[in-house]
Order: sequence, then structure tokens, then C-alpha cells
Amino acid sequence: MDASNPIVHPIGDHHAVDLEEGPLIVTMKELPGMPGTIGGLALRVGQFLFAAAAIVIMVTGDEFTNYTAFCYLVAAMSLQFLWSFMLAILDTYALLIKRGLRNSVLLSLFVVGDWVTATLSLAAACSTAGVTVLFDNDLNYCGQMHCHRYQLSAAMAFLSWLLIGMSSLLTFWLWASE
Amino acid sequence: MDASNPIVHPIGDHHAVDLEEGPLIVTMKELPGMPGTIGGLALRVGQFLFAAAAIVIMVTGDEFTNYTAFCYLVAAMSLQFLWSFMLAILDTYALLIKRGLRNSVLLSLFVVGDWVTATLSLAAACSTAGVTVLFDNDLNYCGQMHCHRYQLSAAMAFLSWLLIGMSSLLTFWLWASE
Repeated sequence: MDASNPIVHPIGDHHAVDLEEGPLIVTMKELPGMPGTIGGLALRVGQFLFAAAAIVIMVTGDEFTNYTAFCYLVAAMSLQFLWSFMLAILDTYALLIKRGLRNSVLLSLFVVGDWVTATLSLAAACSTAGVTVLFDNDLNYCGQMHCHRYQLSAAMAFLSWLLIGMSSLLTFWLWASE
Repeated sequence: MDASNPIVHPIGDHHAVDLEEGPLIVTMKELPGMPGTIGGLALRVGQFLFAAAAIVIMVTGDEFTNYTAFCYLVAAMSLQFLWSFMLAILDTYALLIKRGLRNSVLLSLFVVGDWVTATLSLAAACSTAGVTVLFDNDLNYCGQMHCHRYQLSAAMAFLSWLLIGMSSLLTFWLWASE
């Protein structure tokens, strides 16, 4: 690794530079929820916990394999779980060694991964919600099916998406203002 | 209007300042597709045309009102159409008077509006796609229904979302790097 361009930087390392650019940018760069901070770790933990909840609630019903949208939700939430869990480990490491994750290559990787998983998660949550509303309101199938299970799973997927959306916006902001 | 802080700025007005900040930022700020450029106008026109196509294809079938997801698609695409059409007019105005739209208040308004409409459009496209896949693959309803119409409408909504996604990323980038 090139010692002049380390992957992790001490937290506050950019502070001196930021002060020259103006107070607004300093405030934005210190927002909670950025990668390598306690807020960032909390967002990642929330993401993988909600993703795990969505998967568990869906797969414990045995009917879900009959419906493409529900299988897609399990696949998208599994990807979301893996991504957020991996980044939670990276955030924990950065916090343990007391360094922020401010390398622009790492940030661009986080931005792309966050956008891809966020889009897939929203797509999965919406398609599941669409099918659940169809069963409940339009076809009146809910008497014979576990609709509450599907609704709860879709709600967990939406919550996971909300948190990954916040993470991705913050990371994109940090990357764009680097 | 305060003459010292105009809503529109001559294109290239920030160029001298950007050059002092470094060559990378100059390149990013001149990306095609930014608000107030020909590329930006083309994106907006594409967005409202695809949104209009999604609405027309859906409403010319008489069954769509029976399904919540399809009604939601029409509502979300109508909002998308109005938003993109309004911004296309603003882009045309900026091009006619040969000034870029670089005011930070305007940019933040575009960013919020773009994100809201993009999220609603993706949600509508995904719920329609989820329901269409259910009809086609899982319930085998497509013999009695106009499934191709719904699939085509969902495809148009996805294309509209793809273009609004590009617009919103570019606008957010410009706003974050201001």
C-alpha cells in the first residue's frame, strides 16, 4: 500500500483542509452516519437486521416459493444482508483503530454497492407490496393465505431500504464533496 | 431578486473559480445532463414522454381500474409527467437566455423533487411488474387478460425511472460539489 495514500485516515484528518474551504463543508463532512463512524455502523446494523427479519418472516411460511415476487424478495434481502453485514464489519474495524473511511476508491465502491443494493431492495419491497395489496384488496385471497406474513416481510424490506437509502445518500454526498 | 445572487448564472460563470479548485471538479461540473443544458433538457423530455407512454398504454385498457397497483402506476406516472414537463420548460428557458441553472436553492429543490418522483416511479414500476409476473408466471391469468399491455406500461415506467435516476444523480452531484 502506498503510504502517502492510505485506505483509512485518522478521524478529523481533513479538518484543517475543510476549514480553509468554509464552515458549511466542515459541517457536512462531519454528519453522523458517514462510513467509519458510530452512526454509520448503527445504520449498517439496522440494515442487516431488518433484511434478516424480512427473510426469516418470509421463509417460515411454506407458500412463498409459489410466488416469484416473494422469492425475489428473499434473494434481494439476502444480498442486502451480506452487503450491510460486510460493511458493518468494516465500520467496526475503522472504529476500533479510530480511523475514518475517507479513501475515494473505497467511497466510490461503497456508493456503487449501496445504490445497487438499495435499488434492488426497493424493487423487491415494492413488488412484494404490490402483490400483497392485490391479494388483500383486489382478489380477496387473504382468507386462505398468510397475508400478514407477506405484509410484515415487505414492511421489514422497506425499513431496510430506508436505512440503506440514508447510508447511500450520505456516502454519495461525502464522495461528491471530496 | 437580489442582483448579487441571481437564480440563473451565465454558463461557464463558475469556470474561473473551478480552475482554482482543480481540474477534476471542472470536468464533473461540465458533465452533460446537468440542469440548464441540452443534455438535461433531453433527459427531461425522455422522462415525460416515457411517463406519458406508460399512462396511455395503461388507461387504454379498461380493466386497469380493478387493480390497485395499476391505478398507482397511473398516479405516479402522472406526477412524473408533470414534474419532468415543468423542468423541461425551465431548461428550455435557461437555454433560450443562455444561462445555466446553478442557484443552490433551485438545485436543492430539483434534488428533492427528483428523488421523490424517482422513488415513486420505481415503486410504481416494480409493483406493476410484480403483479404482471404474478399474473403471467404464477396464476396463469394472461390467457384472459391484456398482460402485454401491463408489461409494456411497466417497461415504459422503468425507462422513465432510469432517466429521472440519471437526472437526479447528476443534480445531486452538482449540488453536493457546489
